[in-house]
Amino acid sequence: MTRTKTSHLMSRRDLDYLMFEWLDVESLLRQTGHDGHDRQLVGDLLDLAQELATEHFAPHNRRNDLEEPQLVDGVVRMHDEVAPALAAYFQAGFAQLSAPAEAGGADLPATVSLAADIWFTAANPTTAGFPMLTRANAHLLLAHADREQIDTWVTPMLEGRYFGTMCLSEPQAGSSLSDISTHAHRADDGTYRVRGTKMWISGGDHELAENIVHLVLARTSPDQGVRGLSLFIVPKVLQDGRRNDVTLVGLNHKLGMRGIPNAVLSFGDSGGAVGYLVGAEGGGLSAMFHMMNEARLAVGTTAVALGYSGYLQALDYARQRVQGRALGSAAGSPPVAIIEHPDVRRMLLMSKSYVEGGLALALLCARLLDEERFGDDPHRAHLLLELLTPIAKSWPAQWCLVANDLAIQIHGGSGYTRDFAVEQLWRDNRLNPIHEGTHGIQSLDLLGRKISLEGGAALRHLEEMVRATVARARHEDWGELSSLVEEALDSLLHTTYSLLKHPDRAVALSRSSTYLEAFGHVVVAWVWLDVALSTRHHDEPYHAGKRLAAAHFIRIELATNRARIDELGRLESTLVDLDPSLL
Amino acid sequence: MTRTKTSHLMSRRDLDYLMFEWLDVESLLRQTGHDGHDRQLVGDLLDLAQELATEHFAPHNRRNDLEEPQLVDGVVRMHDEVAPALAAYFQAGFAQLSAPAEAGGADLPATVSLAADIWFTAANPTTAGFPMLTRANAHLLLAHADREQIDTWVTPMLEGRYFGTMCLSEPQAGSSLSDISTHAHRADDGTYRVRGTKMWISGGDHELAENIVHLVLARTSPDQGVRGLSLFIVPKVLQDGRRNDVTLVGLNHKLGMRGIPNAVLSFGDSGGAVGYLVGAEGGGLSAMFHMMNEARLAVGTTAVALGYSGYLQALDYARQRVQGRALGSAAGSPPVAIIEHPDVRRMLLMSKSYVEGGLALALLCARLLDEERFGDDPHRAHLLLELLTPIAKSWPAQWCLVANDLAIQIHGGSGYTRDFAVEQLWRDNRLNPIHEGTHGIQSLDLLGRKISLEGGAALRHLEEMVRATVARARHEDWGELSSLVEEALDSLLHTTYSLLKHPDRAVALSRSSTYLEAFGHVVVAWVWLDVALSTRHHDEPYHAGKRLAAAHFIRIELATNRARIDELGRLESTLVDLDPSLL
Repeated sequence: MTRTKTSHLMSRRDLDYLMFEWLDVESLLRQTGHDGHDRQLVGDLLDLAQELATEHFAPHNRRNDLEEPQLVDGVVRMHDEVAPALAAYFQAGFAQLSAPAEAGGADLPATVSLAADIWFTAANPTTAGFPMLTRANAHLLLAHADREQIDTWVTPMLEGRYFGTMCLSEPQAGSSLSDISTHAHRADDGTYRVRGTKMWISGGDHELAENIVHLVLARTSPDQGVRGLSLFIVPKVLQDGRRNDVTLVGLNHKLGMRGIPNAVLSFGDSGGAVGYLVGAEGGGLSAMFHMMNEARLAVGTTAVALGYSGYLQALDYARQRVQGRALGSAAGSPPVAIIEHPDVRRMLLMSKSYVEGGLALALLCARLLDEERFGDDPHRAHLLLELLTPIAKSWPAQWCLVANDLAIQIHGGSGYTRDFAVEQLWRDNRLNPIHEGTHGIQSLDLLGRKISLEGGAALRHLEEMVRATVARARHEDWGELSSLVEEALDSLLHTTYSLLKHPDRAVALSRSSTYLEAFGHVVVAWVWLDVALSTRHHDEPYHAGKRLAAAHFIRIELATNRARIDELGRLESTLVDLDPSLL
Repeated sequence: MTRTKTSHLMSRRDLDYLMFEWLDVESLLRQTGHDGHDRQLVGDLLDLAQELATEHFAPHNRRNDLEEPQLVDGVVRMHDEVAPALAAYFQAGFAQLSAPAEAGGADLPATVSLAADIWFTAANPTTAGFPMLTRANAHLLLAHADREQIDTWVTPMLEGRYFGTMCLSEPQAGSSLSDISTHAHRADDGTYRVRGTKMWISGGDHELAENIVHLVLARTSPDQGVRGLSLFIVPKVLQDGRRNDVTLVGLNHKLGMRGIPNAVLSFGDSGGAVGYLVGAEGGGLSAMFHMMNEARLAVGTTAVALGYSGYLQALDYARQRVQGRALGSAAGSPPVAIIEHPDVRRMLLMSKSYVEGGLALALLCARLLDEERFGDDPHRAHLLLELLTPIAKSWPAQWCLVANDLAIQIHGGSGYTRDFAVEQLWRDNRLNPIHEGTHGIQSLDLLGRKISLEGGAALRHLEEMVRATVARARHEDWGELSSLVEEALDSLLHTTYSLLKHPDRAVALSRSSTYLEAFGHVVVAWVWLDVALSTRHHDEPYHAGKRLAAAHFIRIELATNRARIDELGRLESTLVDLDPSLL
């Protein structure tokens, strides 16, 4: 069993550069209004995150895979390294980094919180999954719950005494929230009684915390689709210490991400689980979107973490492993490290462009979250974030998974064995295009909703930013790359307007996944151009590597967009009209 | 644990159509020179293959994954369902279908043998791996061994009493055969003593057969690269019943394909393993290529089998699973089966184009094997087969793996659980781009060797066949599809000649994987056009489905080739010149 080396979790250099040189997080730190929020503090936090992730999370990542949680006598049994790791995480205050001061948080930018957390995720995505969900749950309640609910449920979650879940899906309604049948009715004391079955609940049951705070979407009105849904706090243990009427029905056994229990929960088997309404009746889905948006960004970041770690491991392997001779070298010349083989370099360069591009995108979205909170134009930041959330979720889930596939390929036969970590990374990462809204769901969110948000204002804001980068690049004589990004943007926008104008909405949306992928490539090409531009006065290998990867992405990877745009531009109804008996 | 349904292994309809309507296997059957070789016989064989695969292979496919072979006290322990399944397979004579009559074979076309075997592979690729390797080993010996060796080793292999392996790779030399250090020297009795370590040996040790016939590549001359390599039969048990000096060092533990032991073997720990030279000294690699070519086609076929089975399972799931509403339907309309969702249809159509295209390609190559043996122009068939082998290996390994990925996606969260078979198919299929020559190795074989074979004769034969199909399609007024295939062929050929003329061979070969993918897409687009053309007078859903998938592949999938051709056409030296410190 190979232990992941520290240097293979993430690149601190890359995080520092993207945060401080590219995204100017120092100016953000000044805007939070706290003395002591400075680069030194962030550096110390990232040092600590790397240390704790290396010492407490990485060592049991393989064990989480091998010894998945077991349901024994109605209790979820987990091995003994998870709880101490989480205690170390919470004790160091990592769950509280970006929470507001009034909730006991450190009020730091989300950008900083992401840069700290990604170490834990790269080291062990399932142990890190508990605080990720707990924090997203707590953040929702901070935005939508009342003071008493915050004191009762949020404070212990941020301290790590309680953990949180989100309960949306049901057996008959995975992605289809309007079909939710779990229902709740008001009791005389103002609390509710919740009844129904929820599934795919990550962290749905365990013995790691004093309590589990389920956020449950349930119907308070029978006939209004998603508008009849309300949000409830349904704790595993009631405040008087009695167990609530929540039953663990079973656990799912997964391909990867095995370390976090994935539960089917039944609410109200013995009459009704006590639930506390969050906000107003009927406001459940919009409140839940708060958590879903945070979870979607977290899913994208998880995909980046797994892809990045795999890339670093493949890079190290390619530098160490000696095999074969340089192409075109004389017979009898000595064997070389496989990083000398162009095909291996090609796979590494592709991977670098995916994982570093994904990291930049994730940090950019975290910065938008911060601008929403601290910036001069929070509404603009909000719109941009709404538009980019499906991209920040889906693009890394797709392309960092490709990086994990390439990491296996670079390792050759060894990569197919369980002696190396890359196979687990690939299995773990395969979840990310599925949960928190599949690829297809994200694509409908983008094309069916986000593009048209406020009359297209979000899209216009993005267009402005891309054009500004293109103009700066052209000014710096980066003619080829800037033109390629501009052309890709223009053809995407042209196609967007054709799709929006199309009279048949079903036809216009029928290739939304292709649209999502085309859009994602334009966004990441822009991100790469912008990152590369920021390096232009530096000539260390790090900076030259950024320019190399940007050029690769914009010249080679972005070129695949033409086929996507052609497919979309035909506005064909094939997929809608298709007779399923032909499949 | 979900048991794979019979209907989810393969499509008998598709096999029958491709064999008899498309590839005219009936005329091949007449050429074998045996009465009784007719369509009825083939039908009976495929019925039996389906029955045995369903009853004896499919039921323990999941168990092979869960209970991988264990090394206990120096012996490989396997669960108890493998041996009876293999006994049923050999007893029915499936290993002997395409072997010549003088070796006890049925002398049937390889096309028929493939169509029978693919049922077993789809049902259980690891149990089916034993006879696949054994048969490839036997076929090599039939071509290169002397009469006594054939009687001693081949006959019991075709009867299933002995199993076979191929031993090429070594720990320090995975793909680099010129670095093989296992060596052999001639003893006084004319036999050899073999010493060295071989790894990645599938079926390298087990207790399933009376004996294991290792075919070992070993050095008989120290200083001549691959020309110093000779081929040896090294049996596990000598003819006098004593154990040969072959030691099982250990087993690899894999991501997938767990049911077949993958061994590290040490030869000659106690002085020297007895080996019998096959053919002449120095002829080892060219003889081994006989087996490698067969194994490469078998790897491609395995990829097809796994992709195809996953597609059928996803299709069935999509027809059964009700969730969500039709795009653009009125509020309150009833939920629909997910096959009604355009995004699901898109994934199914993509998958169909990959797995059915892959099956047609595999059968086409089997037919070329048959033409090599029975046809009017065996040399032309041989050249075409040499050219197409890297495609037939790599293209399905890449794209049928994508089909397995899509099968998971179509299943949603369920696809990520081990309750469904699609996750195992995806893990199992991930081996195929790695073993029997990685994707990169295949690409160098194609661009560095096969393209130039006999002055480019192989490529010209292929070009003729593609142009003939294009002309027929144009004659049938299939203008758009025929033009797209022709343009793709023209740009591929144009790029090919630019690469061949390039003065720097390392630069020309540096993007060989992109070339392999571009070439594969043109070949499969041609195959699809040809298959679709053959359906033009039929209007059942089966035939209309073929035309639909062909149109999808040629219009949507083939369009991605432009980016590949652009990448290749620039003839850039980036990957050769690259400073690895930038990665």
